Amino acid sequence: MSDRYLDFANSGVGGWLTGALGLPRPAPLRRRAEAGTGLVGPLLLGPAPNEDGNGRLAATLGRLAGASGQKTHAEWSPDVRYGGLVFDASNCADAASAQSLYRFFHQAIRSVAEHGRIVVIGTPPELMADAEGEAIQRGLEGFVRSLAKEARRSIAVHLLYVAPGAEDAAGSTLAFLLSPRSAYVSGQPIRVVTPVATGEAGAGHKGRRVLVTGASRGIGKAIARLFVVEGAQVVALDVAGAAEGLSTLKAELGVETLALDITAPDAAETLLADARARGGYDVVIHNAGITRDRTLARMEPREWDSVMAVNLSAPLAITRALVEGGGMRPNGRIIAVSSLSGIGGNMGQSNYALSKAAWIGAVRRLAPQLAGQGITINAVAPGFIETQMTAAIPFAIREAGRRMNSMGQGGHPVDVAETIAWLADPASGGVNGQVVRVCGQSLLGA
Amino acid sequence: MSDRYLDFANSGVGGWLTGALGLPRPAPLRRRAEAGTGLVGPLLLGPAPNEDGNGRLAATLGRLAGASGQKTHAEWSPDVRYGGLVFDASNCADAASAQSLYRFFHQAIRSVAEHGRIVVIGTPPELMADAEGEAIQRGLEGFVRSLAKEARRSIAVHLLYVAPGAEDAAGSTLAFLLSPRSAYVSGQPIRVVTPVATGEAGAGHKGRRVLVTGASRGIGKAIARLFVVEGAQVVALDVAGAAEGLSTLKAELGVETLALDITAPDAAETLLADARARGGYDVVIHNAGITRDRTLARMEPREWDSVMAVNLSAPLAITRALVEGGGMRPNGRIIAVSSLSGIGGNMGQSNYALSKAAWIGAVRRLAPQLAGQGITINAVAPGFIETQMTAAIPFAIREAGRRMNSMGQGGHPVDVAETIAWLADPASGGVNGQVVRVCGQSLLGA
Repeated sequence: MSDRYLDFANSGVGGWLTGALGLPRPAPLRRRAEAGTGLVGPLLLGPAPNEDGNGRLAATLGRLAGASGQKTHAEWSPDVRYGGLVFDASNCADAASAQSLYRFFHQAIRSVAEHGRIVVIGTPPELMADAEGEAIQRGLEGFVRSLAKEARRSIAVHLLYVAPGAEDAAGSTLAFLLSPRSAYVSGQPIRVVTPVATGEAGAGHKGRRVLVTGASRGIGKAIARLFVVEGAQVVALDVAGAAEGLSTLKAELGVETLALDITAPDAAETLLADARARGGYDVVIHNAGITRDRTLARMEPREWDSVMAVNLSAPLAITRALVEGGGMRPNGRIIAVSSLSGIGGNMGQSNYALSKAAWIGAVRRLAPQLAGQGITINAVAPGFIETQMTAAIPFAIREAGRRMNSMGQGGHPVDVAETIAWLADPASGGVNGQVVRVCGQSLLGA
Repeated sequence: MSDRYLDFANSGVGGWLTGALGLPRPAPLRRRAEAGTGLVGPLLLGPAPNEDGNGRLAATLGRLAGASGQKTHAEWSPDVRYGGLVFDASNCADAASAQSLYRFFHQAIRSVAEHGRIVVIGTPPELMADAEGEAIQRGLEGFVRSLAKEARRSIAVHLLYVAPGAEDAAGSTLAFLLSPRSAYVSGQPIRVVTPVATGEAGAGHKGRRVLVTGASRGIGKAIARLFVVEGAQVVALDVAGAAEGLSTLKAELGVETLALDITAPDAAETLLADARARGGYDVVIHNAGITRDRTLARMEPREWDSVMAVNLSAPLAITRALVEGGGMRPNGRIIAVSSLSGIGGNMGQSNYALSKAAWIGAVRRLAPQLAGQGITINAVAPGFIETQMTAAIPFAIREAGRRMNSMGQGGHPVDVAETIAWLADPASGGVNGQVVRVCGQSLLGA
């Protein structure tokens, strides 16, 4: 679980040696533990001078900056190192107006501090008036993905599509993207639309009841820990075989625990009864998952079946039971853990990739259905995350996984947890039906 | 433009040496020039025994096999090497039924001949009755992408979503996917829906009028050549500076030529007048494109502007002029050349990636608009293609580009041309608004 190259390259001798040899020297990312949850630094807002007075997100940004004590600047100065650049491209509707992107970033990109953030604001392409408008807004994705590959390894670059009228619902998302919490999220579009229910901004997870499956170790444990830190009442679920991990968690964090095999025939029913007895869940996180890697020609039937059961059928059945049986509270949140394997496929993972790609379809379908009840459903797709599972991967493959992304390093379990906590925020009701990668902009994709 | 490693690994001494050293030995792909345009070999249809009598595409497959003289088999035999496996998963609506995929491919995948093809038939996920059905159908993408990575390097694996009722419109697409013409296309979903107009199946491009921009060399030249071989009347367009290439093309292929700068203010008007004088185009291929690679911080304004003008604004304006001004004939086809850079972004290509990603938005918006006139619009996204342009890339980067895909080699310009010819087929009216990668399933993506 330790990245020795990263440690070495950032040590005294190692830094000198990697520099002399021209080797890459990724900077260790700064997360909540080192840098808190506020904005990463003063913000520069573009385009500047802002022709229509203010960008669509100006008010939201002003509030965020005010709350965090960071300044916002409307004009670039060569003497300032900016924590973040935010560019409002939501009105770009043709190639001529897109030139403003070039003018702003050509100058400003050198002024971003290490660990800084870049956010381009767009309008969802399908909401533009004509084909050229849709083309340019869709084109922003190519621009942002390129910039994320050009920026230094500690800088994340985002495309935030905000539907007209949903500006006020973008606060929790902007706060996340401009904070150390999003250290390992970069180079993808995220959408905010009219929220399914209005949550209290800034209320966080205090007092909310949160179910985390597969909570005894790895990413599940990090999720449970983060929600406890945020003041939630966490129920940590895992199979009976993980009882030791669960008791450690209970002793460490004071969470409640639930030993249950989610693939048991009556699991959904049992869980619903338990949920109702607790007064329902605000947040359900389907983190439990298994791999049974083997090429399809060599795979055993039980390796196929068990992966489908744990990763797909069980969490789908539980979702249905909780939603239909009154196990979810209003303004609820469901988050599934998908995977880059589900997006790009992976050798030896035809079972796993099917089960994880299926969640992309499931959240797409369920999002509008659950919106009527004020519930959102989203997925996260982790890339290479440093866990016991990835520590068991052979060295060369592990190294490739770690380095083949724009950050030059693997993520930590807490990076997945932070992304889930943002999606689960009561104020994130405008983010629905999406799949958010937590992969440092891995090269791999579809 | 020559891949020396591929040649070496497939020579006598090279084959022995690479084998002894455990180095990868990609097989040179077999294309139309070596293997014709028919099916690659006998087909095995699954699931078998087929519980509902026949799969949805059975009649279409029977016709294709009959026309090509290949057999179709309904039961797997260990003694047969199959040219293709076609599995109808269109009725899979839950995890239990998806087990049929495992049972079939676990057995059959070893029986695929070199250069074989695998096609999984699905139903467009959003057309399924419920969330589990949508999940499984979407999950097929993860399965197929994994299988494409597991299959030997000469075998392409496809996911073909066919909307219920559009089975008869899938013939040209199945014929393409099961033939040597699709040698460098693999690991992605392709959709066939109710066609915009009914074209004559098997009529091909005989007598059709085809405009190819940027036709004087590279991919454009390969496109012009292929359409000439297919009996089309090709108009090869390029800038005045490429006059020599154009005259060579004229002498070689007998095409008509048109020297025009598509970014000139009156270019769209000129081209429309010319098109009307010719009686309109059946097919327009926006192949002209330029790169001006540089990180955004160092990029010159004209490098940004010229890429936007050539790659995006000009072809969009020409499309509008031809469609609105009567420059397109009925059952027309428009195909734009996008790029993997537009999908995943690329360092030093923020301008290029924006312009190429924009086409993903443009075809999505224009497809339903043009469908009313019986015209389809699609894009192809080439990966690493062996041309003069890629030959100029520094060795290490070029080698990485060549090997980082499931085929272990770069594509040829003709691979892009073949894909365009399929999209342009009069019988491909059910394929609309799509972006098809020609990349040998490159690892790179979004």
